[in-house]
Amino acid sequence: MGAQIEPIETMAAELHRLPGVGQKTAMRFAYFIAQMPLEDVRSLSVALWEGRKAIRFCNVCGNYAAGDLCSVCADPSRHNGQICVVRDPRDVAALERTHEYAGLYHVLHGTLSPMEGVGPDDIHIKELMSRLSAEQVSEVILATNPDVEGEATASYIARLLRPMNIRCTRIAHGVPVGGDLEYTDEVTLLKALEGRREI
Amino acid sequence: MGAQIEPIETMAAELHRLPGVGQKTAMRFAYFIAQMPLEDVRSLSVALWEGRKAIRFCNVCGNYAAGDLCSVCADPSRHNGQICVVRDPRDVAALERTHEYAGLYHVLHGTLSPMEGVGPDDIHIKELMSRLSAEQVSEVILATNPDVEGEATASYIARLLRPMNIRCTRIAHGVPVGGDLEYTDEVTLLKALEGRREI
Repeated sequence: MGAQIEPIETMAAELHRLPGVGQKTAMRFAYFIAQMPLEDVRSLSVALWEGRKAIRFCNVCGNYAAGDLCSVCADPSRHNGQICVVRDPRDVAALERTHEYAGLYHVLHGTLSPMEGVGPDDIHIKELMSRLSAEQVSEVILATNPDVEGEATASYIARLLRPMNIRCTRIAHGVPVGGDLEYTDEVTLLKALEGRREI
Repeated sequence: MGAQIEPIETMAAELHRLPGVGQKTAMRFAYFIAQMPLEDVRSLSVALWEGRKAIRFCNVCGNYAAGDLCSVCADPSRHNGQICVVRDPRDVAALERTHEYAGLYHVLHGTLSPMEGVGPDDIHIKELMSRLSAEQVSEVILATNPDVEGEATASYIARLLRPMNIRCTRIAHGVPVGGDLEYTDEVTLLKALEGRREI
């Protein structure tokens, strides 16, 4: 008893690849697309394919770029001596949403993970080191995730920087704004206590 | 400060059209697609466009079809004299998932809604009536949604069928299986009481 028709099933199978899209949601998307005007589906389809093809990596920082340089590296006002080191381009986007950080980025494209066989040569640490010797850098902000791999990666890079006389900082851990102490895990609470400041 | 690069924004803007996909989710999808292998994005893009182009409506029941007939109408074992009337192809898919219903369908492609100017001639009621005079039909099951428009549509069709000596039934209303009486609205509870059966 298959009322699912083949093109819809093919669409759903492909949409099922997207993060957090289960089979039910994929089917819902596919049925929705089935009744979209042809031109709209065409522009969706073209945007995905052309968009993916257009994506390059910034020659300098490794962020996504439309050309040789990403929009941050291409902006002369952002060259203020700060480099914020993150795991992937999504983290750049997240930090940009704060509209506060005015320096450059460096995207590692991964974090150290001995368990998964990811060593220092597998992520863009070498590229970071050559930037540090070529560019005028006064501070490296380590903004990898506050998880085991992120912490390990941050410590590793911090150790490499120690002889270089560059200020090296780590983003603060603590209770998220709008969060609830009651539901905050112990490790975060401990970090929040350790990082307490005078008010 | 725009770290969002243009192809990603275009992808996100298009994905934002999908049902239940807000701007954040669309951006998450776009970043995910940005790091998918080229071939995978190609097959996603092609599946959506080719899939949408391949979608036809069944000449008989109005369900989605890959050819002239949908998979249900094309299956001779389904011609058992029952026609289940639904609003749209998604409802066919939902009923097929029960793996129990063994008859045919008729898709109205809408429900009567005087408020939105949808009258009997705007949905596929005429097509249903001509099937009833052409095919051997013993029962019409009205499976439009249990909302105002769905009920109105069901009553309207039931009235049309009265002189035709065809058994006409309406799907049962009641408490959903796994549901909770406490959280069931009064109208549904009333219907559940009215529809009670001996055990």
